[in-house]
Amino acid sequence: MTLRVAIIGAGPSGLAQLRAFQSAGKKGAEVPELVCFEKQSDWGGLWNYTWRTGVDEFGEPVHGSMYRYLWSNGPKECLEFADYSFEEHFGRPIPSYPPRAVLHDYIMGRVEKSDVRKFVRFNTVAHWIDFDEATQKFTVTVKDLKKDELYSEDFDYVVVASGHFSTPNVPHFPGIEVFPGRVLHAHDFRDANEFVGKNLLVVGSSYSAEDIASQCYKYGAKSITFSYRSRPLNFQWPECFTVKPLLTKLVGKTATFKDGSEAVVDAVLLCTGYLHHFPFLPDHLRLKTSNRLYPGGLYKGVFWQDNPKLIYLGMQDQYFTFNMFDAQAWYARDVILGRIALPSKEERQKDIDHWRALEEKVETAFDGIDFQTEYVRDLIPATDYPMFDLDRVARLFKEWENDKAASIMGYRDNSYVSVMTGNRAPTHHTKWIEALDDSFEAFLQHPAAAE
Amino acid sequence: MTLRVAIIGAGPSGLAQLRAFQSAGKKGAEVPELVCFEKQSDWGGLWNYTWRTGVDEFGEPVHGSMYRYLWSNGPKECLEFADYSFEEHFGRPIPSYPPRAVLHDYIMGRVEKSDVRKFVRFNTVAHWIDFDEATQKFTVTVKDLKKDELYSEDFDYVVVASGHFSTPNVPHFPGIEVFPGRVLHAHDFRDANEFVGKNLLVVGSSYSAEDIASQCYKYGAKSITFSYRSRPLNFQWPECFTVKPLLTKLVGKTATFKDGSEAVVDAVLLCTGYLHHFPFLPDHLRLKTSNRLYPGGLYKGVFWQDNPKLIYLGMQDQYFTFNMFDAQAWYARDVILGRIALPSKEERQKDIDHWRALEEKVETAFDGIDFQTEYVRDLIPATDYPMFDLDRVARLFKEWENDKAASIMGYRDNSYVSVMTGNRAPTHHTKWIEALDDSFEAFLQHPAAAE
Ligand SMILES: Cc1cc2nc3c(=O)[nH]c(=O)nc-3n(C[C@H](O)[C@H](O)[C@H](O)COP(=O)(O)OP(=O)(O)OC[C@H]3O[C@@H](n4cnc5c(N)ncnc54)[C@H](O)[C@@H]3O)c2cc1C
Ligand SMILES: Cc1cc2nc3c(=O)[nH]c(=O)nc-3n(C[C@H](O)[C@H](O)[C@H](O)COP(=O)(O)OP(=O)(O)OC[C@H]3O[C@@H](n4cnc5c(N)ncnc54)[C@H](O)[C@@H]3O)c2cc1C
Ligand SMILES: NC(=O)c1ccc[n+]([C@@H]2O[C@H](COP(=O)([O-])OP(=O)(O)OC[C@H]3O[C@@H](n4cnc5c(N)ncnc54)[C@H](OP(=O)(O)O)[C@@H]3O)[C@@H](O)[C@H]2O)c1
Ligand SMILES: NC(=O)c1ccc[n+]([C@@H]2O[C@H](COP(=O)([O-])OP(=O)(O)OC[C@H]3O[C@@H](n4cnc5c(N)ncnc54)[C@H](OP(=O)(O)O)[C@@H]3O)[C@@H](O)[C@H]2O)c1
Repeated sequence: MTLRVAIIGAGPSGLAQLRAFQSAGKKGAEVPELVCFEKQSDWGGLWNYTWRTGVDEFGEPVHGSMYRYLWSNGPKECLEFADYSFEEHFGRPIPSYPPRAVLHDYIMGRVEKSDVRKFVRFNTVAHWIDFDEATQKFTVTVKDLKKDELYSEDFDYVVVASGHFSTPNVPHFPGIEVFPGRVLHAHDFRDANEFVGKNLLVVGSSYSAEDIASQCYKYGAKSITFSYRSRPLNFQWPECFTVKPLLTKLVGKTATFKDGSEAVVDAVLLCTGYLHHFPFLPDHLRLKTSNRLYPGGLYKGVFWQDNPKLIYLGMQDQYFTFNMFDAQAWYARDVILGRIALPSKEERQKDIDHWRALEEKVETAFDGIDFQTEYVRDLIPATDYPMFDLDRVARLFKEWENDKAASIMGYRDNSYVSVMTGNRAPTHHTKWIEALDDSFEAFLQHPAAAE
Repeated sequence: MTLRVAIIGAGPSGLAQLRAFQSAGKKGAEVPELVCFEKQSDWGGLWNYTWRTGVDEFGEPVHGSMYRYLWSNGPKECLEFADYSFEEHFGRPIPSYPPRAVLHDYIMGRVEKSDVRKFVRFNTVAHWIDFDEATQKFTVTVKDLKKDELYSEDFDYVVVASGHFSTPNVPHFPGIEVFPGRVLHAHDFRDANEFVGKNLLVVGSSYSAEDIASQCYKYGAKSITFSYRSRPLNFQWPECFTVKPLLTKLVGKTATFKDGSEAVVDAVLLCTGYLHHFPFLPDHLRLKTSNRLYPGGLYKGVFWQDNPKLIYLGMQDQYFTFNMFDAQAWYARDVILGRIALPSKEERQKDIDHWRALEEKVETAFDGIDFQTEYVRDLIPATDYPMFDLDRVARLFKEWENDKAASIMGYRDNSYVSVMTGNRAPTHHTKWIEALDDSFEAFLQHPAAAE
């Protein structure tokens, strides 16, 4: 009997899983029956931009956390698929920091060519999943959102690829409930134009804080006040930026910080991260973790230790993205296909413990980059995913960190050499800080035409 | 064996159910075991204001749709509990249109006195409910949000009192995905101060549109453009208001309407109503209805026709609110206690058909008021809920409609006579349009002190 594999989510991770199986099929392997359940009406995950916030037209929480005018915050050379280069997709080298629409097009290109869309059931949300010890099968209950009807099917494996940058972590601060202006989490941020001329308080000090603040500045916010909990965002910010320790209270429009200082602000943006949230999984199958490089309970970062037929993709904090999801998906595929045998539970635990011990030692960003590089290196050789020069990717990540330190508003103007093709990316025709039009067409137009 | 009754939600409807049983218990009846599951950390339903929007701290959709500076939009004399008057609660008559905090205090007063809080499990969301034909019991699976753990219990009856003004109905309009400014549904509206000096487009023409627009005007919005689908909001609006037919597209900040006219706007407020949404119920138990005076499939507006042990409270479109929920809860209680026998399925269907036929004839607001008055009159006499002069309430509702027609910005300055006590409400110390402070203290302070 053919195995049945359910994939929850058609974002980059779920699509990597579909592509991994398609690639094996093309080479002659007998591929399981695949069903990918995707709650949105199209694929692409976070890259599939939505104007909606809160809940969607069916009352389901909106998945999308991306916003307008978002550009890649890392060089595209670090996330390039090893089996599908940017050059292959666009027919020529393109600059290193593309806006969302361009990256979206790239991700879609590979799966469109591989004819896997037929496996995806859109507008279908995973509602409940359970495992039957007797039959050794998962029962996956989903809701067809358009029909407003639930149904169940049985599967041998379940791949959870539902992402973990979608359910906002929204802390309370005293006085926030009567702040006379907008309060929002990064998840609900959509358009910087709303904040033109405003004084913004940005709580949090990671990628969302840094990028949303930079974007609001670019589009005309009056001032930015950062508030950090653990570590300040140490960049050379423009003059209208201020960095403060943690917010302690809001009284009217006045924010007070841990050091007793104050700022008068018009809006509060909580860039306070996301929760791993799987409302469709029972306690015994549910991953509970903070955003970290090696969540516990996952062998090779993917197989649920208590029941390795349950597979999680992309649940790590991410330096690496698309090609790491590929490495995971290829590995998972090969376990499902019986090409890789899983060791005993004890052996698996030893491996998990080994990686967790290494993760413990991570202190700096460079350590984190090295750690994740080794993690990816541990996966690829066991599969037929094309190996690439991981050390060069690691060096690129470090170069990127340095470029950000040198110029937070200018780092996206740099260009890097593709690890896959060896070609250097051209410089973009417009500096990021001046590029207000982030459309596909504007970005890809010929440099000469842009002048 | 004691019967077990699960109540989903501790808003006004769920609280009415708790109070109904407590009242019977006080008079000596043997009361079933009650468990009320409430996803919020406190009771009061929509009246329990939250600053949060989108999803809450546990990743659950935020229930609250109320906003700051919200005042009752109907006279309090129309919603007064028959067993607990405003005068009993406040110790004196108070004006007719109280702000949210004052009404919240009133609703809480009755249940706090009746010692029913012990029945409520807070931070607990109904996750899944099913019915076992063999045991004739419901299995209710809930999630303890703080512990992040699911558990199940069996019940003989389930009362769904989870409200239906919480899951927004959010239509798409061409160009809305690239509108350069804020787009929000009424459900996510919290503070009018955000819109000071702005030109607002308000889509929809019912209570939310009318009240949110009025409030934004009161707090300093620059202009309001209404856009209606079926009928315009025919009031005497201030000069900066315009009424347009349906929005057909948005290009940049320019909105175009069905008549070809245009308006340039800074923000789009979708006051487009709500969905009846019960993600915790399987298809065969789930009410599917639009917002109407007599949703189908509910005998007496409450008993699920296919399984009358499933009870829905407050699912009607609402002229009557608190005292109608009481009438429903008392009736449901008496069926559960065996005091009222449910007729055969056929008889029940006849009754439903009878009411649906009457509902068909409703054309005007006055018809709607009369219809719901008769509906409430059909319930109360079968129970020991104190009967009150329903015709006077119907007259009050009509007076209110006339007062609104006379002055949409001034109608809240009127006062009415309590149907329960016969006393006329005092006039408020400040006109609504000038009363920027909506706090409990400001509203209840002595008229003299306010001067
Ligand atoms: C604001 C933001 C900007 C980012 N920018 C970059 C960047 O520049 N470069 C980069 O490499 N990475 C970036 N990322 C990281 C991002 O996590 C990855 O690029 C990638 O999207 C992760 O893919 P995924 O498939 O694991 O998850 P997602 O992209 O989140 O996709 C998950 C999919 O699962 C679906 N789903 C969820 N729940 C269910 C359910 N119950 N039933 C059915 N379907 C479900 C969702 O609808 C979605 O389609 C960014 C993240 C954020 C939040
Ligand atoms: C903006 C606005 C203003 C209004 N103003 C007025 C007014 O001025 N006067 C008036 O009479 N009426 C007003 N209403 C009408 C309002 O519907 C009623 O007053 C009343 O709140 C309805 O009570 P309820 O208990 O049926 O629902 P709700 O008040 O919505 O309460 C439902 C409860 O169920 C809980 N719940 C939901 N799902 C679950 C779950 N899965 N598990 C556990 N708990 C759950 C919720 O957290 C909530 O506490 C207003 C409504 C809105 C939206
Ligand atoms: N393409 C782009 O430009 C772009 C833009 C935005 C985001 N992203 C991606 O999106 C992902 C998520 O990034 P993120 O920044 O949203 O999340 P994140 O990296 O997990 O960071 C969360 C931040 O919130 C802070 N925080 C959490 N709880 C807090 C509290 N109670 N009070 C104060 N601060 C609190 C954390 O501070 P502590 O350090 O104290 O824990 C941390 O700074 C990343 O993969 C990122 O690359 C990309
Ligand atoms: N206390 C207060 O001041 C206050 C304030 C706000 C709300 N409330 C309460 O909240 C409840 C809900 O009121 P509500 O106004 O949100 O909902 P509602 O009464 O159900 O009205 C929904 C409105 O949205 C319109 N609509 C729906 N879909 C649309 C679409 N696709 N395009 C354009 N218009 C569309 C409807 O138009 P059609 O007529 O064409 O269908 C209708 O005007 C009521 O009980 C009300 O009393 C009270």
